[in-house]
Amino acid sequence: MDSQQFREAAHAAVEEIIQYYETLPSRRVVSSVSPGYLAPQLPTSAPSESQPWTSIQPDIEKLIMPGLTHWQHPGFMAFFPSNTTYPSMLGELYSAAFSAPAFNWLCSPAVTELETVMMDWVGQMVGLPDVFLSKGQGGGVIQGSASEAIVCAMVAARERIVARKCEQEGLKGGTRERERREGLIRAELVALGSDQAHSSTQKGAIVAGTCFRTVATKKEDDFAMRGASLKQTIEDCRREGLEPYYLTTTLGTTSTCAVDIFDEIAEVCKEYPDIWVHVDAAYAGSALICEEYQHYSKSFAQFDSFDFNLHKWLLTNFDASCLYVRSRADLTAALSITPSYLRNAFSDSGLVTDYRDWQIPLGRRFRSLKIWFVLRSYGIQRLQAVVRGHIKLGETFADLIRSRGDLFEIFTTPVFALTVFTVRPPMAQRSRDTKAIASPADRPDPTHEDYTNDFTPDAQAQYLFNANRITKDVYETVNNEGEVFLTSSMVKGTYVIRVVSASERSNEEWIRKAFDILVRTTELVFQRENKVQPQL
Amino acid sequence: MDSQQFREAAHAAVEEIIQYYETLPSRRVVSSVSPGYLAPQLPTSAPSESQPWTSIQPDIEKLIMPGLTHWQHPGFMAFFPSNTTYPSMLGELYSAAFSAPAFNWLCSPAVTELETVMMDWVGQMVGLPDVFLSKGQGGGVIQGSASEAIVCAMVAARERIVARKCEQEGLKGGTRERERREGLIRAELVALGSDQAHSSTQKGAIVAGTCFRTVATKKEDDFAMRGASLKQTIEDCRREGLEPYYLTTTLGTTSTCAVDIFDEIAEVCKEYPDIWVHVDAAYAGSALICEEYQHYSKSFAQFDSFDFNLHKWLLTNFDASCLYVRSRADLTAALSITPSYLRNAFSDSGLVTDYRDWQIPLGRRFRSLKIWFVLRSYGIQRLQAVVRGHIKLGETFADLIRSRGDLFEIFTTPVFALTVFTVRPPMAQRSRDTKAIASPADRPDPTHEDYTNDFTPDAQAQYLFNANRITKDVYETVNNEGEVFLTSSMVKGTYVIRVVSASERSNEEWIRKAFDILVRTTELVFQRENKVQPQL
Repeated sequence: MDSQQFREAAHAAVEEIIQYYETLPSRRVVSSVSPGYLAPQLPTSAPSESQPWTSIQPDIEKLIMPGLTHWQHPGFMAFFPSNTTYPSMLGELYSAAFSAPAFNWLCSPAVTELETVMMDWVGQMVGLPDVFLSKGQGGGVIQGSASEAIVCAMVAARERIVARKCEQEGLKGGTRERERREGLIRAELVALGSDQAHSSTQKGAIVAGTCFRTVATKKEDDFAMRGASLKQTIEDCRREGLEPYYLTTTLGTTSTCAVDIFDEIAEVCKEYPDIWVHVDAAYAGSALICEEYQHYSKSFAQFDSFDFNLHKWLLTNFDASCLYVRSRADLTAALSITPSYLRNAFSDSGLVTDYRDWQIPLGRRFRSLKIWFVLRSYGIQRLQAVVRGHIKLGETFADLIRSRGDLFEIFTTPVFALTVFTVRPPMAQRSRDTKAIASPADRPDPTHEDYTNDFTPDAQAQYLFNANRITKDVYETVNNEGEVFLTSSMVKGTYVIRVVSASERSNEEWIRKAFDILVRTTELVFQRENKVQPQL
Repeated sequence: MDSQQFREAAHAAVEEIIQYYETLPSRRVVSSVSPGYLAPQLPTSAPSESQPWTSIQPDIEKLIMPGLTHWQHPGFMAFFPSNTTYPSMLGELYSAAFSAPAFNWLCSPAVTELETVMMDWVGQMVGLPDVFLSKGQGGGVIQGSASEAIVCAMVAARERIVARKCEQEGLKGGTRERERREGLIRAELVALGSDQAHSSTQKGAIVAGTCFRTVATKKEDDFAMRGASLKQTIEDCRREGLEPYYLTTTLGTTSTCAVDIFDEIAEVCKEYPDIWVHVDAAYAGSALICEEYQHYSKSFAQFDSFDFNLHKWLLTNFDASCLYVRSRADLTAALSITPSYLRNAFSDSGLVTDYRDWQIPLGRRFRSLKIWFVLRSYGIQRLQAVVRGHIKLGETFADLIRSRGDLFEIFTTPVFALTVFTVRPPMAQRSRDTKAIASPADRPDPTHEDYTNDFTPDAQAQYLFNANRITKDVYETVNNEGEVFLTSSMVKGTYVIRVVSASERSNEEWIRKAFDILVRTTELVFQRENKVQPQL
């Protein structure tokens, strides 16, 4: 593809992207293809001969579009958003044009330096304490995802406690004796997160090769992790012979956007200085650009690291996960190994940052470009307006759900544009469920993993069983219909529906539409329920 | 930025990228900015108000270009290449437009399905045995980098041996007893790689929390790992109480493109079935698209995993690292944890691939698009022609180096478009060096880490000391001049210069230019050397 061919192809691609965004609402939000739809439509091997762009591009609409679930669709209310915008796409285009693995400063100084400046811009924007900015002992680095940020923090935490213990025991580095002791210390370590923390903490513990335990949360606390429960878990671990070394605390958990009680956690962790505390704010961290949420940021001052994804809420395409640490030395002590072929005078001098030592991979893309473009194209005020607008939409939706207390029940306090609710069983069933259940055959199936932890053979369980079944029925019917796309979750035995209104194209029309679909579907499910007699 | 503004901005960006590529040879290949050049030219915080593209774009030329090292420049002969092409950029643009974290099949079926087809295309293209393709028990997955591929393979390897040992010992899963034993098994594990393996193997071992040992190579083998040396290391480890569980074997090491002797390694590893053998072919793997190299691919049949980077040699922008495993169950057994909010009927049915269980992060970009565009735009034949052309250029360069045996010495057999050589000390010094060295003061400084391992107080060491010093001088002078960009490396005490001719814009004119610069610079350094009497 020469320059002129590229010009033509790029113009055609730009038109297709514009067309895609302008017609998004008319597409079905969730892909309806069946598994294995694509392979039969493609050759079984790469072509021998080159093909012109004019024969490639039509296959995007023909083969790819049917297999897309449209995360930027106004009816996309599932998971958390994956917003992208035109300036962000341009950043990715330039990044591809300037392609380089940029693993040290000299590989392309602009890649390192723009990243440092952008991470400081973003850090200030979300009100992080100065200790996390580059002017101090800390700083920010762009990771590919919140999961990778957690692995980095966890490995740094693990090596920090291992080094401290070995030093306390007077073991010198580089000896087999020390190495053996390090292995035994690692074998006793345990990573912690609340039972609502994202699964990436558990996965991180697997990658780091340590144990993992959860801190219990309660519905009465809206599933926030509390200090007392954390302390209990730490002490329980120690009784088991396990040494806690790392904790994920969350601003906005995946299922319900729970916000842990940071002040209580900080207070408890004062007693356990070897525990690295990481704040996972993957989604809700973006809300910290609004002053009314920055009291949270201030409470992170005692924690070791903080991460949130610009690529969820803040209009920057995947990937741009912003990890901040209070001590970059803790991170690089674990992750730096500099072989001769990567040495240069600038790196050796310590004048420059080599971000490869802040992450798992060696190479890195020029991801700060898209952040720069987005922050300048929008400016802080418009970004704040976007976030506040989404939160307001969420409140509107929660009010709608509350207005139909006969059908729905709010499950946890709506927050950060997320409403979590359940469908109530129809009235007739509810009254039946108040009777005691006579025989074991009536009980919910305890072999189903979702229910195992919560199985109790009483009326309350039967109510829950029915509510779960009906909520699931409503959820699946709505998603199969495919006008809007929602997510369900199982939170401590309760099957819930989640609705998020934080896509860039979220608007009141679509939020009301989602509500109407939910009402209509629930009434339909109720009719079905009332026709079928429960097996007694 | 609305549609029309995006159209205008994108057109302007495309023109700038075309202009950049057309004027590349006239730019200085290495950035000449000083550390900290950028921050003083930027505001200290993000703007409050939005800015138009017309005020953003000029800053690319003004602020970013001076800080770029141009990896696509024909004078870029450093490290390994980072090729990118117009079709690849278009793939990245669409990927940003369709932004999604695509962590399971339903999140966007096309992301998963195109990846499976592309990985099969690429796997066949490089002649991998069928066991690595999706039709069997294995398959390919796109990772961000060869480092991440190694961490995945290593964690899978670690958990495989841990599970096998626990099962042999009759320990049931889910018990504290089993967990404790797992920790103790991990504490005794050791990952292996040759002393020429990329540093990512050592870093992977840190992330995985295991020990690491190297297998010695010899210059007489062109630094290839041999079976006997591997066996020796395995047995040495066991005597130390360590259990080898993972081995990186390399096709094309970083310093000299050494190719390990795969058949010998496979033979040795038959005796140690718990060792996971991973083939790191990050750079040279691309050459396997040419039939004349596919005897290597066939020899991988007994190994557990294979990885190479399309984003180095095969015209696809960073990142596109292709990891293949012979048993996807081994990978997912270690890396899969599926919480309720990620469950859906398709994933549960096993009909679809959830690539999140094949990697560390949860989310993933639509990286297969750019691979699809590149493979179709070029076709296999033209890609083969590109690779063969680069290898021929490398041979031309090696012949030029050989033609000046008075100045240069080839260090290892030139291969895969890489020539590794040293500068000979000037004749006058060489004759002096043949005399025995009288006093300790004449010896090379043994405290310098580069020399520590190789210090021997004899004439040979003095020759090496001088050759290293002069080679380093030539290398640094050439790179400071900045017309071409080369890399040096320290290989077992010898300071070498590496020249790679595999950038998409590599051509004979620039290869000859690099040679002429090297000759001129060496002669200049010799003149300086002859003026200065050595301190005797």
